[in-house]
Amino acid sequence: MDQRLERIKLAALHERVVSAEQAASWIKDGMAIGLSGFTRAGDAKAVPNALAERGEKEAFQIDVYTGASLGSGSDGRFAKAGIVRKRAPYQSDPLMRSAINSGEVRFVDHHLSQTAEWVRAGVIGLLDFAVIEALGITQDGLLIPTTSVGNSAAFALHAKELIVEVNTAQPMELEGLHDCCEPQAIGVRQPIPLVSPRDRIGTKGIPIDVSKVKGIVWTHQTDSPSPIEPPDAETEVMAGHLLDFLRGEVQAGRLGKNLPPLQSGVGSIANAVLHGLLDSEFEGLELYSEVLQDAVFDLLDSGKALFASASAITLSQPYMERIYQNFGRYRDRLVLRPQEISNHPEIIRRLGLISINTALEFDLYGNVNSTHVAGTKMMNGIGGSGDFGRNAQLAIFVTKSTAKDGRISCVVPFASHIDHTEHDVDVLVTEYGFADIRNLAPRERAERIIANCVHPDYRPQLQDYFNRATAQGGHTPHILDEALSWHARYTRAGTMLKKSP
Amino acid sequence: MDQRLERIKLAALHERVVSAEQAASWIKDGMAIGLSGFTRAGDAKAVPNALAERGEKEAFQIDVYTGASLGSGSDGRFAKAGIVRKRAPYQSDPLMRSAINSGEVRFVDHHLSQTAEWVRAGVIGLLDFAVIEALGITQDGLLIPTTSVGNSAAFALHAKELIVEVNTAQPMELEGLHDCCEPQAIGVRQPIPLVSPRDRIGTKGIPIDVSKVKGIVWTHQTDSPSPIEPPDAETEVMAGHLLDFLRGEVQAGRLGKNLPPLQSGVGSIANAVLHGLLDSEFEGLELYSEVLQDAVFDLLDSGKALFASASAITLSQPYMERIYQNFGRYRDRLVLRPQEISNHPEIIRRLGLISINTALEFDLYGNVNSTHVAGTKMMNGIGGSGDFGRNAQLAIFVTKSTAKDGRISCVVPFASHIDHTEHDVDVLVTEYGFADIRNLAPRERAERIIANCVHPDYRPQLQDYFNRATAQGGHTPHILDEALSWHARYTRAGTMLKKSP
Repeated sequence: MDQRLERIKLAALHERVVSAEQAASWIKDGMAIGLSGFTRAGDAKAVPNALAERGEKEAFQIDVYTGASLGSGSDGRFAKAGIVRKRAPYQSDPLMRSAINSGEVRFVDHHLSQTAEWVRAGVIGLLDFAVIEALGITQDGLLIPTTSVGNSAAFALHAKELIVEVNTAQPMELEGLHDCCEPQAIGVRQPIPLVSPRDRIGTKGIPIDVSKVKGIVWTHQTDSPSPIEPPDAETEVMAGHLLDFLRGEVQAGRLGKNLPPLQSGVGSIANAVLHGLLDSEFEGLELYSEVLQDAVFDLLDSGKALFASASAITLSQPYMERIYQNFGRYRDRLVLRPQEISNHPEIIRRLGLISINTALEFDLYGNVNSTHVAGTKMMNGIGGSGDFGRNAQLAIFVTKSTAKDGRISCVVPFASHIDHTEHDVDVLVTEYGFADIRNLAPRERAERIIANCVHPDYRPQLQDYFNRATAQGGHTPHILDEALSWHARYTRAGTMLKKSP
Repeated sequence: MDQRLERIKLAALHERVVSAEQAASWIKDGMAIGLSGFTRAGDAKAVPNALAERGEKEAFQIDVYTGASLGSGSDGRFAKAGIVRKRAPYQSDPLMRSAINSGEVRFVDHHLSQTAEWVRAGVIGLLDFAVIEALGITQDGLLIPTTSVGNSAAFALHAKELIVEVNTAQPMELEGLHDCCEPQAIGVRQPIPLVSPRDRIGTKGIPIDVSKVKGIVWTHQTDSPSPIEPPDAETEVMAGHLLDFLRGEVQAGRLGKNLPPLQSGVGSIANAVLHGLLDSEFEGLELYSEVLQDAVFDLLDSGKALFASASAITLSQPYMERIYQNFGRYRDRLVLRPQEISNHPEIIRRLGLISINTALEFDLYGNVNSTHVAGTKMMNGIGGSGDFGRNAQLAIFVTKSTAKDGRISCVVPFASHIDHTEHDVDVLVTEYGFADIRNLAPRERAERIIANCVHPDYRPQLQDYFNRATAQGGHTPHILDEALSWHARYTRAGTMLKKSP
């Protein structure tokens, strides 16, 4: 017997093993599919790959829903083959990004906690297939996820049919890590009984309807590593500013010395800022986040962090090797949940999270753009930053003060796209300092942001804009003819600077 | 004995009765106070009035926090006397609005569910006084609110000292209507055990520390009536579009035929739209809202609505007379809660609310401006629209397609201020139709909004903008030089129209 079949404890399912090509052939033009995968972790790999290959030879288009970004080059191959009509709720592939920005792919940039609600409520029509990566299937019909849970539970429970990719390259030690559950339907929904990042409220796998399993596919392929960059001098300075802010809150008695649970967004800057806690006085930390990146494991190793809850584990290549070779060391201090639970407003508000996410740019009054370059071009998507920022106790957004070697100021008169409004943003951090804008009127916020966050090259021209706008009056002073002119100048002249410094 | 003392069941408090002038004299320059009051209902009246009077003769400035807007001319008198330094979280007075827009008053436009969190966490420094209107105080130290609960519980529990205004003009039948409670502190907070608008989870009054009661003041003054306008032909048409949308959702099986609980925002349009349900086939309705306006009582009278939960009751003059003369008819079908409970993300998401709020304007891609005229001048504030819109099952925003006799289009290329982002808005309604923009990419949303919501006079120029922007590419096409030009044109030329129709 194929040793791999031991992963499938229900013998009745053994005869459903098929090739990836065969499984992919079931997915027809016009269908909608839900794929496992969250920030490259635990993504379905073989079937998407076979599907893209088919798409290079055959014309068809499908709608693709995921947890968040896929790895394994899938989104890029999809885009190249032109087989995606609609894509939601998040992606981070350069080719897919181009297809979205050209209008070829209809991208729905959706809060990560809400996609499962739309699947359940039928706003997204019935998914034809869910394709879910698994460690295996237990005797009692639980599908055991791998390095992410994402939207896999909602997809598996609500799709018409199910394709399971059993990935033998994922470490078996992941079993027991997951806590799977689904909120009840609207109308009979009870409180979610989670009051600490450590609480387990579900089952160790997804309770699938085995009669819906149309095929099982073998894969043996590790997740794509995270392209995260290690902390640099500027991100270290930013981490220092954040620590200063947190220290001040503890001293003022507004935060306990162990801090409430932390959430940290995807990407190098958020990772670096979290890394800064390693050399701080803070101890007994807990994380309630959507993705666990490298820094979390350093915090666990150092004993600074005691526990981490998320929906996915996404590591760089060196961390991946180190962590998965010793996964037993971490297992009791981790839990992976569906993204609608890791990102749920109810839990985020209850736990009083400190939420740290990356901004592309923010404006004088604290509005944050997380998604669109120059207001028009999609970068990746809002991800969970809205779920967390809107409901956290502290919504902190971090960015370097400039981009493109100083030709772009990340602090502008008017954000060219707004993902987080002035009402939702508490603290802004750049390498120049932090601006705590809570309980401030817009003009007060502007003064603090100019003083603390703007790059010195841009400070005079932002101050000048603010002065002239304020002379015209208004609660939130603006000169509408000029409000977006910095972006327009960059497009025309290659720099937002009025004169070279 | 003064008959009014019967309202104060704790005899030890009787000697603390003082005049409004005396109580107002305790409030000194630089202090922060919390006043009861939510959309003109249950506002402290005598002390604010005496304070404004003192302010006309004496120079001092204070920070004023409330539930939402005050009635009784208080904000206007405050502004005229120039005694307010900071004002939060909402107001609707023309004089206060002017003072905010000139920069004299620092206004913090805050989600109504979050102010109590800031009070509790110390983000707003300790309040020096809470001034709370009450029906009376019970034997066991419960302060019984009147026509609103608002932030009164948080203010009373967390201010240094307390002034109680016992208003003998408020109907005693209000006793028993309230359900007061406070979420636990962050770190030990449990789920809020509310799973239906009917659930009671607290006490019938606010459990005050009677030792903090510095003074009790008598008033005899009804709430200021709501200036709400009755439904007109256009709002009736809008209500019809909303009903069509809801009908479609029921037919598609996405909503039950009794609908999930409804929330309806402040103002004439939201009231009129709710009024439209009166002649519909929908029955067995429940409301989970922040304020109950006239239409809710018509729905209760007709039997269409069975129950209504909110934080305040705000009625027009004729309704006020009718309802409060027969309040016994309604009492068992109503509950008033703290605004942090009526507007709580946890509850809003759990109940799967249908949320209907008024927009000032919205843009091609579904971003909504609820607060700022031409991006700069504050109207009233975001109120609860963010609490509800962000977490509801359906976030619906309604506005007439034009304002100022057609010289302003309420559908624009780029919202001049954004309170509700494209990620948070589900359905837009004007008198021309509704646009269901769920699960659509930005370009798809724009096409639907232009086709269904824009006034025909503006349709060609909005279509032209969209076409030219799309030719430049991008996920969310814009021409940044032109994006805000409609507002600038209105300021210069008195109309957003390029040519007269």
